[in-house]
Amino acid sequence: MSLRGKFGRIQPAPENFIPDALIDDIRLNGLDASRRRFLRKSFAAASAALVSGSALAAADHPGGEGDPAILKLPKHSTSLGNPVTHLPYGQPSKHEANLQRRESPGLTRRRESSIAFTPLQGLFGIITPSGLHFERHHAGWHDIDPSSHRLMIHGLVSTPKVYTVGDLMRLPSVSRMHFIECGANTAMDWASPAVPSVQYTHGMLSCCEFTGVPLSLLLEDCGIDKKNAKFILAEGADGASLTRTIPIERALDDAIVAWGMNGEMLRPENGYPLRLVVPGAQGVCWVKWLRRLDVGDAPYATREESTQYTDLMPDGLSRQYSLIQECKSVITTPSGGQRLMDKGFYNITGLAWSGRGKIARVDVSVDGGKQWKTARLESPVLPKCLTRFNIDWVWDGKPAILQSRAIDETGYVQPKMAELRAVRGTRSVYHNNAIQSWRVEAAGEVVNVQIS
Amino acid sequence: MSLRGKFGRIQPAPENFIPDALIDDIRLNGLDASRRRFLRKSFAAASAALVSGSALAAADHPGGEGDPAILKLPKHSTSLGNPVTHLPYGQPSKHEANLQRRESPGLTRRRESSIAFTPLQGLFGIITPSGLHFERHHAGWHDIDPSSHRLMIHGLVSTPKVYTVGDLMRLPSVSRMHFIECGANTAMDWASPAVPSVQYTHGMLSCCEFTGVPLSLLLEDCGIDKKNAKFILAEGADGASLTRTIPIERALDDAIVAWGMNGEMLRPENGYPLRLVVPGAQGVCWVKWLRRLDVGDAPYATREESTQYTDLMPDGLSRQYSLIQECKSVITTPSGGQRLMDKGFYNITGLAWSGRGKIARVDVSVDGGKQWKTARLESPVLPKCLTRFNIDWVWDGKPAILQSRAIDETGYVQPKMAELRAVRGTRSVYHNNAIQSWRVEAAGEVVNVQIS
Repeated sequence: MSLRGKFGRIQPAPENFIPDALIDDIRLNGLDASRRRFLRKSFAAASAALVSGSALAAADHPGGEGDPAILKLPKHSTSLGNPVTHLPYGQPSKHEANLQRRESPGLTRRRESSIAFTPLQGLFGIITPSGLHFERHHAGWHDIDPSSHRLMIHGLVSTPKVYTVGDLMRLPSVSRMHFIECGANTAMDWASPAVPSVQYTHGMLSCCEFTGVPLSLLLEDCGIDKKNAKFILAEGADGASLTRTIPIERALDDAIVAWGMNGEMLRPENGYPLRLVVPGAQGVCWVKWLRRLDVGDAPYATREESTQYTDLMPDGLSRQYSLIQECKSVITTPSGGQRLMDKGFYNITGLAWSGRGKIARVDVSVDGGKQWKTARLESPVLPKCLTRFNIDWVWDGKPAILQSRAIDETGYVQPKMAELRAVRGTRSVYHNNAIQSWRVEAAGEVVNVQIS
Repeated sequence: MSLRGKFGRIQPAPENFIPDALIDDIRLNGLDASRRRFLRKSFAAASAALVSGSALAAADHPGGEGDPAILKLPKHSTSLGNPVTHLPYGQPSKHEANLQRRESPGLTRRRESSIAFTPLQGLFGIITPSGLHFERHHAGWHDIDPSSHRLMIHGLVSTPKVYTVGDLMRLPSVSRMHFIECGANTAMDWASPAVPSVQYTHGMLSCCEFTGVPLSLLLEDCGIDKKNAKFILAEGADGASLTRTIPIERALDDAIVAWGMNGEMLRPENGYPLRLVVPGAQGVCWVKWLRRLDVGDAPYATREESTQYTDLMPDGLSRQYSLIQECKSVITTPSGGQRLMDKGFYNITGLAWSGRGKIARVDVSVDGGKQWKTARLESPVLPKCLTRFNIDWVWDGKPAILQSRAIDETGYVQPKMAELRAVRGTRSVYHNNAIQSWRVEAAGEVVNVQIS
């Protein structure tokens, strides 16, 4: 499409809801009034909302237009900067301090069992920076000394074994990119839209490159009883001793006992030094601080799979042991809490994923699902991994309803909210993978809404 | 292969050279003598160098074998841990503090123009954590305020334009994973092996997911003069005003004006808020703090492409404007400075890359190149991106020479050092992509050597 037209601009939501990477507008708001007027004038003057050439030098200087020092370069262009290893382990720019994982206050009784949401509205591509990986704990997190940590495998095996972290790291390893999504992601929207932004509707979602030893190799090493083994109990070393049952076919497929995340060791709040990676499965199965795997012949009915993480169905029975996160997608920009400041061109961008394989296609609608256009998928498109999509949009200034609909390689189509409710009712907490709707008001506000 | 045999163990090099992720041995060395003896005994007792089941409880407690508190769980299993957003932007474990990018002291006269090397020996997969991305500056780095930063495009275009960062971020964007390698990587080894570890031989190498607007789209937007435009000058906003010539066919292919790196904004030391990404090209072309693109009809012969970054050939002439990083690979574990502590099984792992496309195959030799075996490539295998390889090895305790040899999709085979020297002589500084050799001594030390 031609870029000669007018560009739209997006204003981020207030910072306690939307730490936004669309820094230009944040910065505009931080400037004093006269400078803001100057910049607005420049924008107005440039036919394509681009600052005109003559504004360049002025824009580099606080004095702005008519500054006598107009030819002076900014300090960073005329001075020596910081040396290498100024930070032996690098950190984000101070100008990005607003991009944080954030709690939803009051969601749980204690912050040790609360949730910190990933700021999806400010992220690019598919990799989640480890510093912004979502958090969900059951008894808080510890920075466990890996020299005293052990993994025991026992139960229906011929040779129960205990591995040190070093033992595991010497084994043949694999590296794979996968998403992890909490089963409770988008939980608050089952009944009606409850939270304002994509950080809170979908931010229990992250995606990293994990490195570890295939679980199948460890089970082989311990002499798994292939005839009788049907389930595995995975247990964490935290105060909650969090435990979940994993069906043996998942354990023998692509599950990994991982130590690596995005090239380095796992972060403490994500299970350092060992976490179980169960691609496609809900996050609670990816047991952190993994210390024990018990091979058994029946599911274990632990707390986190009987009283919790079950889905109350319309007939009053609970769906239990739901494991796989079904195909889902969400538009991350424009999204709830942001504001479109002009008519014109926008790049609609978002994420799609499926616990059953690769994303085959993502469609985007700007009229609440009447018409759909197929979005562009960024490569790589990997199984059980986030896929980034982008599509051009020119906003005409009228109310619009933005939606994305993902289809995975099995042919499964992400359902509408009404379709999901028809099967599952409205009393569920977990496993809401319905199409998300963002309404753009005529004034440009973007709001979380539900379309029947 | 069977894992029933003996596992080898690796001792990392002294910390000022090798911050190593093989934490178990670091930790062993940090323990007091009696505990060390106990653990060694446990290792010896377990037929597969695995701690026996009975050692588990003991290993969890400082008291070790016979500790009366043998059934007591560690504190992290019995107490409440840290709450969520304890760190709104997460950090590595305190136990991983030794994994740092490191300077090679004295390499340059000032630390503002020095190099910090990525600790490849401690990394997994292909993604380089942004905090460990290598650094090479010409006048130090600044944390530039993005609200005052502009990108100007001028020269052979019908409409010169100045873009704000916000302008660029509203455009259609792409996300792609690419390696970046300094042209001077492995420079110190042209004459003879000069540095002890892979951090210093190959650590001017990183790999990230970059997000930005295709440069071709911006040039189109400014109305590039397609008939006469042959080269582009890219200029940075640092004190060095670093400038490099980019051939127009590279600029119009897959180059990106990037703001995103590994999901978030670029780090200040890597060019925040804008950097030119020229996939496959040497790092100096990926101009940081990008402020200007001049479209011209001839190369610009700037300082960094005339007196610097040229290759002095055997005939006394200099090879200039060398752009593409040719196919290359290196074994990252076992590697120089580490020590193999036992005979037995090892997972040989490393990285391969090519500036001309995808990696087709990686072969590994343990006898200095007499015999080669094909390694396993981890997915995804992407063009102009790092590819992780792994291969099993059982060390018999005799001296060995480990090598990897990469072949890219064009059929190009990574050369031996002697083959490279036959063409390029020994007076080069840049563009050494020869096969790396690590000699394993009978005592287990791993040393940087060159094989004719």
